[in-house]
Amino acid sequence: MNIVFFLFDRITALDAIGPYEVLSRLPGARIDFVGAARGDVRTDNKFLRLGVDRTFDEVTAADILVVPGGFGTRALETDERALQWIRDIDRTTRVTASVCTGSLVLGAAGLLRGRRATTHWARLQRLTEFGAIPVSERVVRDGKIATAAGVAAGIDFGLTLALELAGREVAEAIQLGIEYDPAPPVDAGSPRRAAPAIVDAVLARLAARDRAEPVAI
Amino acid sequence: MNIVFFLFDRITALDAIGPYEVLSRLPGARIDFVGAARGDVRTDNKFLRLGVDRTFDEVTAADILVVPGGFGTRALETDERALQWIRDIDRTTRVTASVCTGSLVLGAAGLLRGRRATTHWARLQRLTEFGAIPVSERVVRDGKIATAAGVAAGIDFGLTLALELAGREVAEAIQLGIEYDPAPPVDAGSPRRAAPAIVDAVLARLAARDRAEPVAI
Repeated sequence: MNIVFFLFDRITALDAIGPYEVLSRLPGARIDFVGAARGDVRTDNKFLRLGVDRTFDEVTAADILVVPGGFGTRALETDERALQWIRDIDRTTRVTASVCTGSLVLGAAGLLRGRRATTHWARLQRLTEFGAIPVSERVVRDGKIATAAGVAAGIDFGLTLALELAGREVAEAIQLGIEYDPAPPVDAGSPRRAAPAIVDAVLARLAARDRAEPVAI
Repeated sequence: MNIVFFLFDRITALDAIGPYEVLSRLPGARIDFVGAARGDVRTDNKFLRLGVDRTFDEVTAADILVVPGGFGTRALETDERALQWIRDIDRTTRVTASVCTGSLVLGAAGLLRGRRATTHWARLQRLTEFGAIPVSERVVRDGKIATAAGVAAGIDFGLTLALELAGREVAEAIQLGIEYDPAPPVDAGSPRRAAPAIVDAVLARLAARDRAEPVAI
């Protein structure tokens, strides 16, 4: 089982590392972190380097492709080389997936036309720009395309895929192995449950970042 | 707010990236990934490189220190240079923390004597080797020491610390920003809820790995 994660500058690390931590535990899994060039990428806040060990040219097929999100996805929406690589890999996959705003990249590659899909709650309506049908669910599956909601939803996506590909016992053993028994001390993880003032605060921060860095919404 | 994550070979990536994704969103946060040498470390499964941008010699103080877990912690338990650096940093922190088997490193450094602490559920009794009092809770606080349970518990630890340091509105906005609204498709994240056969399967896999790599429990 060859699982490929696409890495790029200004990625949100947890978008990739959540599903990686789950899917790397699938029996027979091999994971490649692939990018435009060998070396490193920096996360959205610049604090962390993640290693790119293989390039687009070196990886031409995958069983599972995962495109994470982050502020860097805006630039990818018009990066024809990256989009063509995604289209080429998609022709070989069992599952083509995204986490958070990674779905906007799948959309820009033309893979979401007429399909149900999700993304970070604050960007959900942007899916319509690519002909997708926005769905406010944690993990959305349409054919072989799987899209997860924002950032931490990638862990639930990973387990959902583990359940599908390897069965309940394997999925439960992975969940127990990583002690994914969530107990957040606050209860505002969805705009449906957060107070309106909290939703407004997050939207205002995203809007301020959009104004400061218009290329990197 | 200077937040330092210790990186080392054979780390479990999510142990670090979960709390990093939360704590990096605290107002005024600056995050450093620190290790024995500049360059990279590889995760437990060798699939992923994480960048070490600063060394022990360069970082001599922190507001928050986070020691993640992973199979590599076994070697750290007798790595006097790493343990002395942890002791030195601990003298400067507001909070010294661990995720998963990172607490066994804090223990080896002598920081858990007589303290309540936790770790990955399968390693909980090992805390007694270091004079700590094992507690089966998601996040345990004793004085300025905070220890989190296995792997994914680091996200709950991060939010717990955000709540304490920055208040409820900030913690809720971070939770909403990373859409941490867990919905796992299976319910076996704790040995209290997993079927006995699943618990046995995970313990058997860990035991096999211990036999294959006795230095790296």
